[in-house]
Formats: sequence, C-alpha cells, structure tokens
Amino acid sequence: MNEIISSSQNDKIKYLNKLYRSRTRRKEGVFVLEGKRLIEAASAGGADFERVFLSPAFFKADKNKDLIDKLQNRVSLDLVSEELLKETAATVNPQGIIAIVKEPNYSSEKFFKTADKILLLDRIQDPGNMGTMIRTAAAAGFEAVIALKGSVDIYNQKVIRASMGGIFAIPIWQKVSKNEFKKDLKDRAADFELLAADIKAEKYHFEHQYQQKLILMIGNEANGLAEDLLNIADMKVKIPLKGEMESLNAAIAAAVISFEILAQQLK
Amino acid sequence: MNEIISSSQNDKIKYLNKLYRSRTRRKEGVFVLEGKRLIEAASAGGADFERVFLSPAFFKADKNKDLIDKLQNRVSLDLVSEELLKETAATVNPQGIIAIVKEPNYSSEKFFKTADKILLLDRIQDPGNMGTMIRTAAAAGFEAVIALKGSVDIYNQKVIRASMGGIFAIPIWQKVSKNEFKKDLKDRAADFELLAADIKAEKYHFEHQYQQKLILMIGNEANGLAEDLLNIADMKVKIPLKGEMESLNAAIAAAVISFEILAQQLK
Repeated sequence: MNEIISSSQNDKIKYLNKLYRSRTRRKEGVFVLEGKRLIEAASAGGADFERVFLSPAFFKADKNKDLIDKLQNRVSLDLVSEELLKETAATVNPQGIIAIVKEPNYSSEKFFKTADKILLLDRIQDPGNMGTMIRTAAAAGFEAVIALKGSVDIYNQKVIRASMGGIFAIPIWQKVSKNEFKKDLKDRAADFELLAADIKAEKYHFEHQYQQKLILMIGNEANGLAEDLLNIADMKVKIPLKGEMESLNAAIAAAVISFEILAQQLK
Repeated sequence: MNEIISSSQNDKIKYLNKLYRSRTRRKEGVFVLEGKRLIEAASAGGADFERVFLSPAFFKADKNKDLIDKLQNRVSLDLVSEELLKETAATVNPQGIIAIVKEPNYSSEKFFKTADKILLLDRIQDPGNMGTMIRTAAAAGFEAVIALKGSVDIYNQKVIRASMGGIFAIPIWQKVSKNEFKKDLKDRAADFELLAADIKAEKYHFEHQYQQKLILMIGNEANGLAEDLLNIADMKVKIPLKGEMESLNAAIAAAVISFEILAQQLK
C-alpha cells in the first residue's frame, strides 16, 4: 500500500470526483459505491471492482478485516485521508470506504435463459422508487430486472442506496429500447407470460393464476405503462383501491403484485 | 377581497412563513398545504381551513372556479403576488395557492368506534415512508391510522406530499404514547385482532385468516416494532424473503400485508 492520499488534486481523486456526474459515469462504464454495507453487498454479489479508496482507520479496524481481505485479492486499494474521503463522498458519512465498480454487461440471450420471473420497468422517474423496486423484486424472488430507456439510471447514488444491495442481488439490464425488448420477447421469451399492471384492468391481481415463467411490467409513476406495452400484454391486472384513493405509488403497486405471485407459488 | 399582498413583511405572510418551522406549526395547531390538488383533497375531506393565499392568476382562472367557490364559503381568501407566493412556498412551484389548515383533533373513543381496520405505526422516521404508508392504508381500505410518539410529524411537507391526499382520506391520530395506546386497546378495542409485522414471525402473511376488526402494527425502518408491542400481539406475520435480501422497506411491508387482508375480504 502506498502513502495516504490527502490532496483533492490527486489524479485518482479527480477521476473519482468526475464519476459523480452521471454523464462521465456512463461514459466510463463504472459507478461509485459508498459505505461498508453496500461494498460488502457488491463483493458478495461478485461485482467487478476497479478501485477502492479507504481511510487509514477503516483499513486498521479489526471488524473490517474480512472485507479488506476479500477486496485485496481483487482490486488495488488506496488509502485516503478521512477528511478527503468525506469531502469527496455524496453521502454525509461514507463510513471510511468508497469503491469504483465496473458496470456489468448483460446479453439478452443469457438474460431470458437464466431468469423465470422478470420485472420490466417503463420510464420510472423517481430514484427512491427505482431503488425500492429493485430491492423488492429481489426479495420477492424475481431473478432479473429490465429498465427501459427513459427510466432513471440504476447507478444513481439514490437508487443504489434505496436498493439496499438489491442491485447486486439480481442482474439488471438497463437503457433497453422498447423495440429491442419487443424483439427479444418474440425471439427469446415467447414462453413467458407477459403481465401488465394497469389501473383500468378488469381482473384484480389476486384473481389471476400466474404462470411459472413471467414478465411483470410496471409503468411510469404518473402515466402508467405505455400504450403499446399494454397492447401486447397477455394479461392485465389491477389492485383494488378503497378510500377514494386514485392510485398507488408505483413501487407499492409492483410489490403488491410481486408478492401475490410469490404467495401463489409458495401456497 | 382586499388588495394584493406583495411584501414579505406583511403580518399574514410572516405568520405563514413561521409555520414552515415544525415547532411553530405544532404550537399553533395548524399545517400548511401547497398546490391545487392537495387543497382540493383537503376540501373534499372536510378540512378546517384557517386561511388561504392565492395568486391573482389562480383566482381568475376559470378552471379554479369550483374550488374557489367552495373555499369562499368557509374561509377568508387573500390575494398574494405570484412572486411572494413562490418565495414563501417549500415546493418549487406552489401552483398559485397555499392554505393554512387546522390540525384535526381525534378522541380515542370515537376512533375505535368508527374504524374496523386500523394501521398502527411505531417510530416511522422517513417522511416519504410515512406519507406512502398513509396513502397505501387509505387505498387498502384501512379506516384510521395511529402514529405513535417518535414517528415523524404527519404534517411535515414531505409526508403530506407523499400521502397524495391520503391524510385527508382517513383520520390519523398522531403523537400517541404507547401507554395511551395500550390502555385504549384494553378499554375500547378488546375485540380487535392485534397483528404485528415481524421478520421473525413463524407464519407467512398469506397463511393467516384475518379478522374483520383488526389493528396492523408496523415498526421502525431499521429496528421493527418495539418488544412490548410484539409481546401483546395476537398474531405475528412475516413476508417471505428471497434473493438473500434481509428485509423490505417498511412501507412496502405494510402494503403487502394490507392488500393481503383486503384480498381475503374481497375473495
């Protein structure tokens, strides 16, 4: 290990700083993780680390030895002063560790072969919703997520944090065009049941018997699914609404349907 | 209607400004609403308005006539310049209207008599979660919410916005002490089934047959329900978790159980 970096003019720190801008992040094909918990989740999920920055205190602490041992086998570690680490991070307290991780690449071929239950997200805007949806999908036994173009970047810091490690638990294929998805659906996923959450559906979500292989489509917070996606769905389901409420939060709607599907499979 | 207020030194505007501080808000027993949609929801829910500020453009617009007619019968309206209204508001765009509403008062006696399904929230911290829980509870047919002391103020601007009008759809009794709740439970709600969402429960949420009259208890985001509340529960239920995820977001957990209860009643 080299000396402790303490200057914001250090080239590695300048590079790290740039990655907080979403355009640079995307261009470089990497994303930033802050804090022990997320970096542990990334390590457990087999993430491809590019670089890890940590404070001398974090490096020395006994409780971090396991994680550091695992990381040292895979990536070069850089010591950074506590102050500079805090100054650089997006969170108030990065807890002594920041990592740069390479964005995983998914091919659609592999994607539909390895997953039985897939969540498709159409133009989800709110980072908190996106992160919660990923967390919930993983918890409900979904094995993959497809985020269509027009959805918020899943490597946005708020999405990562709200996902509570979920982005490392299941593969997520993002920035997929609708045409690409439709073509794949025909070529590779013809045996999947295509489900749409639709406030105007006739059936309640608990009245339908779900197939083993399925794709659940959830649409934009304000406008729901795009018309052409609704049109190709094999089945549309709605959630009953009481108390004169007009709608549910999109992440809540996704969760209610996802866990009904899981419950049917466990019953 | 008097002239248009355009100075931030106007006494009514100074009072309004102070209400954005939560201590003053609580002391005065009122809260602030911004935007047409929320104020319509408040009006429909029978809210007790103290004062309404609106821009000359909002006042003149044909599409706002219905709302203004309703408000004029109940409260004094003040015209405020567009600029001053924007400067005062917490949202980027208050859409021409801000209202001060009196906090409703609930007696526990009435509370348990008029509701069959009640959601109890124990130390919910995140305003977005709190608002979403209220919105979801109303949508799932819950008829009341009790927020125990230590939960975020339901009249916090972020809670109000996330609730999407839900805070006007059902009565919410907040800042209730645990002892007060336990006493009421004995004295007034002995015939309610007391349910706890508990990650360590033995039964899955879909394995239990819920009673008609029930109180569903949901705990703090990080730590769940307090031990003593778990101990008095008639039944504990958990949600199955896959993908090595350790937990769900608290609002998601509340939604999944609430809609299972509703589904059982509709089946």
